[in-house]
Amino acid sequence: MNRTHDSKGYWDSNIKLLPGISIDCAIFGFNDSQLKILLLKYKNTDCFALPGGFINEDENLGEAAERILTERTGLKNIYLEQFYAFGDKDRRNDATHHKLMAGNGIELKPDHYLLNRFVSIGYYALIDFSKATPTPDQYADSCEWYDLHSVPALIFDHNEILQKALYTLRHSIDEKLAGLNLLPEKFTMNEFQNLYETILGEKLARSNFQRKMLSLNILKRLDKKITGGAHKAPYLYSFDIK
Amino acid sequence: MNRTHDSKGYWDSNIKLLPGISIDCAIFGFNDSQLKILLLKYKNTDCFALPGGFINEDENLGEAAERILTERTGLKNIYLEQFYAFGDKDRRNDATHHKLMAGNGIELKPDHYLLNRFVSIGYYALIDFSKATPTPDQYADSCEWYDLHSVPALIFDHNEILQKALYTLRHSIDEKLAGLNLLPEKFTMNEFQNLYETILGEKLARSNFQRKMLSLNILKRLDKKITGGAHKAPYLYSFDIK
Repeated sequence: MNRTHDSKGYWDSNIKLLPGISIDCAIFGFNDSQLKILLLKYKNTDCFALPGGFINEDENLGEAAERILTERTGLKNIYLEQFYAFGDKDRRNDATHHKLMAGNGIELKPDHYLLNRFVSIGYYALIDFSKATPTPDQYADSCEWYDLHSVPALIFDHNEILQKALYTLRHSIDEKLAGLNLLPEKFTMNEFQNLYETILGEKLARSNFQRKMLSLNILKRLDKKITGGAHKAPYLYSFDIK
Repeated sequence: MNRTHDSKGYWDSNIKLLPGISIDCAIFGFNDSQLKILLLKYKNTDCFALPGGFINEDENLGEAAERILTERTGLKNIYLEQFYAFGDKDRRNDATHHKLMAGNGIELKPDHYLLNRFVSIGYYALIDFSKATPTPDQYADSCEWYDLHSVPALIFDHNEILQKALYTLRHSIDEKLAGLNLLPEKFTMNEFQNLYETILGEKLARSNFQRKMLSLNILKRLDKKITGGAHKAPYLYSFDIK
């Protein structure tokens, strides 16, 4: 995909974009006790950003978010959750836009689409990062996973968007985890607790965790996991959602 | 306020509005075991709607929502929570817009601002309805509280917006209630439970409720309430939020 836009906000002269609305995606990646975030780096700059984009006139808002997620990760049918609309009037600034496009050899005219005020709708996703194929957009030369503890300064209000996404993810974890396919079909309580601890960024007491999870009525207890020492074998669980 | 708009989306020729973005407000009212919703009825029509409006170019998104809430209720500094952006491409329809404006004696030209596609940002508020002064906007002839059990058919996707607001309110009740000033400074566990039951629309077991609320660490137990029969006097509580 190699689109160009003119000052009226058309791409390829064919696709019309909604004016003044953008999408930013906080794409979290989980695997092996690590939680990461997918970031773009704009060409020939030191500017990092969350992946994002605009809404075609013939797309629903959610469809546009899914398209952006698929373009950046190669994954389809991923669970994506809208979490907030960022609409402060000063959330973007022209100088950064000029810098980002200058790195691509593009000079923005004063009436360019990108220089309008935008309200950005935030979406987050949580995926197994080992299954994704990070792919930069046309203005970026890298699209990579960053550890949440070493996120660089991001453009505009993207650090704030990321923090709000992380907060939302952590506060909705009980309802959300079951649907995310981040565990094998059958898993032990230890594996489940490890997923929680990685996302929450803190250790949990084992007995409390087990009691809380069982009380949520989202788990079905299966047979014991077959290991070497049978008397120590842990139970396996699967999700059991109504 | 008596604004008019022309086809370019200006009101009063002075105030410029953001293109393609609107706000819809689900304003819930609580008092005396009743939960209601504030609805407008458009002039000379049978069309009901959530209160809403647009965003001035010099307003933050949240400031616009606060302004709309104040205009419709007379209340300031009310807790307002953004909950979702509604962006399906077919969520509005031209025929309804023409009908709403025809009731006001206005004929919409095909390039009128209102006939653009809009993404609407939903906000909800929960207030004591006895303190509000419902005030119609310029296109409505009534602005009234409706019992949640007898909400009429609303225009566009406003019934869906209302349901999503109610869902969000009910799922965030634990975190939110303390800040909403819907109880006196000191209250009994019975009063607190009554507020919960009214919002949730269901009865709760008294002992479970008390146990859960005390475990949330948001309540401070005070002296007993002074009543006639001292040995039956209930404890008073106040919120104790860190």
